Amino acid sequence: MVDIASRVHNHNWKIDPIIRSLIDTDFYKLLMCQSIFRNRPDTRVTFSLINRSKDVRLAELVDEGELREQLDHVRSLSLTRGESTWMRGNTFYGKRQMFRPDFMEWFENLRLPPYVLEKRDGQYELTFEGAWPEVMLWEIPALAILMELRSRAVLQTMGKFELEVLYARAMTRVWDKVQRLRKIPGLKIADFGTRRRHSFLWQDWCVQAMTEGLGDAFIGTSNCRIAMRRDLEAVGTNAHELPMVFAALAETDEELAQAPYKVLADWHEEHDGNLRIILPDTYGTEGFLKRAPDWLAGWTGIRIDSGDPASAAEVAIRWWQERGEDPRQKLVIFSDGLDVENIEELHAQFAGRVKASFGWGTLLTNDFRGLAPGDSLAPFSLVCKAVSANGKPTVKLSDNPMKAMGPAAEVARYKRVFGVGEQAAMEVVV
Amino acid sequence: MVDIASRVHNHNWKIDPIIRSLIDTDFYKLLMCQSIFRNRPDTRVTFSLINRSKDVRLAELVDEGELREQLDHVRSLSLTRGESTWMRGNTFYGKRQMFRPDFMEWFENLRLPPYVLEKRDGQYELTFEGAWPEVMLWEIPALAILMELRSRAVLQTMGKFELEVLYARAMTRVWDKVQRLRKIPGLKIADFGTRRRHSFLWQDWCVQAMTEGLGDAFIGTSNCRIAMRRDLEAVGTNAHELPMVFAALAETDEELAQAPYKVLADWHEEHDGNLRIILPDTYGTEGFLKRAPDWLAGWTGIRIDSGDPASAAEVAIRWWQERGEDPRQKLVIFSDGLDVENIEELHAQFAGRVKASFGWGTLLTNDFRGLAPGDSLAPFSLVCKAVSANGKPTVKLSDNPMKAMGPAAEVARYKRVFGVGEQAAMEVVV
Repeated sequence: MVDIASRVHNHNWKIDPIIRSLIDTDFYKLLMCQSIFRNRPDTRVTFSLINRSKDVRLAELVDEGELREQLDHVRSLSLTRGESTWMRGNTFYGKRQMFRPDFMEWFENLRLPPYVLEKRDGQYELTFEGAWPEVMLWEIPALAILMELRSRAVLQTMGKFELEVLYARAMTRVWDKVQRLRKIPGLKIADFGTRRRHSFLWQDWCVQAMTEGLGDAFIGTSNCRIAMRRDLEAVGTNAHELPMVFAALAETDEELAQAPYKVLADWHEEHDGNLRIILPDTYGTEGFLKRAPDWLAGWTGIRIDSGDPASAAEVAIRWWQERGEDPRQKLVIFSDGLDVENIEELHAQFAGRVKASFGWGTLLTNDFRGLAPGDSLAPFSLVCKAVSANGKPTVKLSDNPMKAMGPAAEVARYKRVFGVGEQAAMEVVV
Repeated sequence: MVDIASRVHNHNWKIDPIIRSLIDTDFYKLLMCQSIFRNRPDTRVTFSLINRSKDVRLAELVDEGELREQLDHVRSLSLTRGESTWMRGNTFYGKRQMFRPDFMEWFENLRLPPYVLEKRDGQYELTFEGAWPEVMLWEIPALAILMELRSRAVLQTMGKFELEVLYARAMTRVWDKVQRLRKIPGLKIADFGTRRRHSFLWQDWCVQAMTEGLGDAFIGTSNCRIAMRRDLEAVGTNAHELPMVFAALAETDEELAQAPYKVLADWHEEHDGNLRIILPDTYGTEGFLKRAPDWLAGWTGIRIDSGDPASAAEVAIRWWQERGEDPRQKLVIFSDGLDVENIEELHAQFAGRVKASFGWGTLLTNDFRGLAPGDSLAPFSLVCKAVSANGKPTVKLSDNPMKAMGPAAEVARYKRVFGVGEQAAMEVVV
């Protein structure tokens, strides 16, 4: 029987929205947002979309009108009652009322600020300007929208059976990966794939596949909407934008050198346990750890997001030992460019020596490599970063020069201040 | 929105019927049925199910109660008005009113006769006894029911994602085959996969994939219900049961030797054009052609259903040349154990020399090899044959001794009468 009402209802959509909820975003954005709302509410920032994969000419693939429709739709969203109830009532990292009433009240009334969209050399220049706690919430929706519009642009060219077989192949691939991961004893792995997912529905399918296939080894998803919908743990801690903005606001080199620790001091005060995770690579892991105060060594763990993950983890282990900490009690979260092969390798090398855990991103939720003609659905490296704070440019060095950003002069200054020398360049896949 | 009515409706099914229509059968069964209805309506025959794959212990896999429910459901079916309209009004092989009014009237009132079901050594013994035109219509439903109940028995043990991925893999495999076939210039291929399909819905999907992927190279399906539903050509001509039963009825060796030609004489009178297709292997292709009357050499083509297809086709080509016929004007239909590899080879060897065409069966509609644990969904060799006529046993020799059937003494007699010597044994895959 045909459900006429459903069909009419579906035809009533003016657009098929990619982002249908303000919490279709990464959990750590909300945690950071609350922290910023509390500590730096008036900081003016600019976030900007950067496509590191120049060969993917987004402005030629994606129609500007459709992009604007999707972005405008996000601006029409506000937190629903059910979403607010979930954030207020749910337990995150074993803690109740992770989100304080004053923040929730502000968030319930929030609409995302305007965007500025321009085209240049086949790319979109998409920027967001305004108060940090508002603008920063654009990052994930902006990325997810462009990723999915690019997918849709390619999928439009395919017939019914090509599509059916495309997803058949993609499902087979994800499930084969899950079957391999299943064989790793004591694995802990989470979905970090929101920002560069093939599509929302596809991420949701991948998360269900992980749930069904991995059981307890699957510890949650960074996507709040999916965590709420599928009754899973929402996971994530903090990101580069915190030290980057704090550093940009520094008046002197001395303040700059202290900025990355200052921001973590706020975090230290706000969070404990598994939320105390160091992200050390913003201005070079080695130097960051060398100059770190002892209270940081007491934190629960570290997240490794650039450079060679194995050597970065070894550096962390040595550091903990030097500071009289027991690495076996420490959490090491790998979250950069993961796929089954390196997950297996890293787990083999570090399981038992530390509490290893994995935040699996793009190659979980967007591994369409080789599945479409001309590899036109392969994931690409799109980021949305804070590029300035109160008018001053931000800088990121990371442990991989290919991931560095900021004006050359500032990059040089940061390298001097943080004592970063030669770095090994590694290709950025996703 | 949930379509409550649909859900309730679906829950109202007492069983999920495998066969939902009397024309969910091969077109050639209906053609032969009409011919038998006209020429041998009173012949009493016994059809019997034979599982050549002894390792597949059907009686242990398939519940007897479920099997009886499915068989009983077939007995409750009668031709619907729409089906009757299609058979009466449609054009088959370019001819209107292929089915004569007297036959249609009989068919519209037909219910299938009773069955006898017993278990022995882990197998089902399923037999049908009665008037030839009625009993012969059990063949395809009986096979399709047992094949699908076996599939269901295995699928019941699998979880949601295993199932999703199973079909994802199977779809990918079929579509990859279609993509390869697409590259063969001038290919003509039809679906002959009803009897040993994985399931009805799966055959229907495979037929749609062939339609979508091959265009004009896909010339139709042997399944009348799917042909009607998908607006495709229904194809097929005649089968071994005709010479087998006619031979069994022969009183003397002389009559026996003539039986295979006698039955085709009836066919010659009833049909012309592309329906005049010789099936020469029932008692050995070589001898059959050698002793064939010249009017048979005038027929449109030949169907090769056992033995080595390439050498059988060469035999036919030489035979036509000896009889002064032009092989390039003749149709050669390959229908035994086909898959993409041998379709490619046979087409390369015979395209241009004859009008080559392919009836693709089990490895189109049931290639689940290697897709389930223990290869428990691999197709197997199940047949349902006329084993006796008016109390006398039937015999089949074919060009492959592995496909021979009948009592040893009778087989020996037939070999003598038809001058069949040593035969090369070939493994029967499906």
